[in-house]
Amino acid sequence: MASNWEEFYSSHPQPANLNKDEDLLRDFCARHLNGDTRVVLVTSGGTTVPLEHNTVRFVDNFSAGTRGSSSTEYFLDRGYAVVFMHRVKSLQPFSRHFSGQKFLNMLDLNETKDGTSITVTSENVPRIADVLRKYKSALECGKLLELSFTTVYEYLWLLRSACQILAPLAERCILYLAAAVSDFYIPPNEMSVHKIASTKPQTISLQLVPKILAPLVSLWVPNAFVVSFKLETNKDLLIDKAREALNKYKHKLVIANMLQNYRKKVTMVTQQNSYVIELTTEQSNAGEEIEMYIVKNVVDKHEEFIADRSGKS
Amino acid sequence: MASNWEEFYSSHPQPANLNKDEDLLRDFCARHLNGDTRVVLVTSGGTTVPLEHNTVRFVDNFSAGTRGSSSTEYFLDRGYAVVFMHRVKSLQPFSRHFSGQKFLNMLDLNETKDGTSITVTSENVPRIADVLRKYKSALECGKLLELSFTTVYEYLWLLRSACQILAPLAERCILYLAAAVSDFYIPPNEMSVHKIASTKPQTISLQLVPKILAPLVSLWVPNAFVVSFKLETNKDLLIDKAREALNKYKHKLVIANMLQNYRKKVTMVTQQNSYVIELTTEQSNAGEEIEMYIVKNVVDKHEEFIADRSGKS
Repeated sequence: MASNWEEFYSSHPQPANLNKDEDLLRDFCARHLNGDTRVVLVTSGGTTVPLEHNTVRFVDNFSAGTRGSSSTEYFLDRGYAVVFMHRVKSLQPFSRHFSGQKFLNMLDLNETKDGTSITVTSENVPRIADVLRKYKSALECGKLLELSFTTVYEYLWLLRSACQILAPLAERCILYLAAAVSDFYIPPNEMSVHKIASTKPQTISLQLVPKILAPLVSLWVPNAFVVSFKLETNKDLLIDKAREALNKYKHKLVIANMLQNYRKKVTMVTQQNSYVIELTTEQSNAGEEIEMYIVKNVVDKHEEFIADRSGKS
Repeated sequence: MASNWEEFYSSHPQPANLNKDEDLLRDFCARHLNGDTRVVLVTSGGTTVPLEHNTVRFVDNFSAGTRGSSSTEYFLDRGYAVVFMHRVKSLQPFSRHFSGQKFLNMLDLNETKDGTSITVTSENVPRIADVLRKYKSALECGKLLELSFTTVYEYLWLLRSACQILAPLAERCILYLAAAVSDFYIPPNEMSVHKIASTKPQTISLQLVPKILAPLVSLWVPNAFVVSFKLETNKDLLIDKAREALNKYKHKLVIANMLQNYRKKVTMVTQQNSYVIELTTEQSNAGEEIEMYIVKNVVDKHEEFIADRSGKS
């Protein structure tokens, strides 16, 4: 009998642009396989669950993409090559600093008889220069590959492909699964074809999305360093839930956080112990981001993991 | 007995920042009330319906905010003052042309011994200069007020306040209701407090959101020129649904469009007739936007409406 996740894949056809993304992943992976560059797959943003085949309405998960996009910058800082797999229109590394109309407010229009030029206002130059330098460097070194998804189906297909293509990197690879993936979905045969008419109340039946960490850890990337995230709103459940996931899927690390303060505090839960990373008020006020500390910590753990593996081999 | 919409407002408390938005609206309205500037309220983007009080998951409506944000630019071009009421992080006028990493790709970093400067690459100057000029002019003339919402509750509270404050503008005011507003919601007493556990399938019961066009047209802005939008995925229903709305709410115009081609074709449905506005392939290829033609058409109709009203008074 097919397992739950195999059934799920067989009942949701492959997204149209998957082959193109797989080609990009293969090129990226081939470029880094022969060196000693460490690679991280960062997933970021929420996934949608359409309520109609011609989708007007959908269920979504809270996630602006802050965690994934900022962590990507810090992994690049540490020399990692990053596959940044994100929800369409969620925050992206580098550009996240200038979303909305912020960037138009930083531009000066200079119109003279010699012509028109547009410059970044001097007070904004240092900050933008720093971001721009890092962004261009990541692109020039071929260290950043950005791929996107919208629905939970696109996410799961792309995630499996990425795992299979990254698997040969073995322990050199981190999976940093920060995306907020839907736990529920509507089976295709129960979905309305057209926009549901708003003439009467509706009941929606949601089925469970298979827990994809199970095949991911045991079958797809058995030698990689896998990090998952756990978001809760009730602090009494948080650490137990994280510990439960770790016991069930046998991966390396769960980063547990509360919706109410996820930008200030996380708990790192490993097979051995758990400890808190928390920004001080001074750090927050100075504009520091918790992801810098999270990534430093993950990179240290990854280093130990690699050393441990090579000791054994 | 309280009507449906009154019950809805009384069971969903006023959003925290509503008073601040009302102050901005009053200032904006006072500035334009004594001149002869025409004013339009543009609503834009989708609304969310939270599934939990501590919201991790929500139902959302398809809308990037393209229609509302681009129409805002064309209304400004025509001399209108615009209240742009949009979903947080949906497209905004002017900045919509440079979303994501597009704008980082347009910047040149010049580092010399005299210092660092950042300029827009010369091939991008004409386009950005045009947008920047219009953006700065709209701000300088005080002709653009941007307000935002996320949930359908915030939307409905803000819409009612905006209508009440704009009402004294009477026939000089257009309501251009392009936001994709949820038709369904979950009553607060049926919502989970915390994130719903993903241990078993779920059933969600959705109630109907009251049709707010009814009090809006008849009570809140009885003298304004009200334009609503109708989005369908089944073309057999589109015009009938638009006509039905017009008969029911007695407003001036429904702009009917199909999800599949809403950026290329709309049908304008009035009390008297209906006609199609459609971009030709040449217009599309030249980068023209259908909103330019829609807004021109709406402005012409508004002009006739004002002339007609002053003829009668």
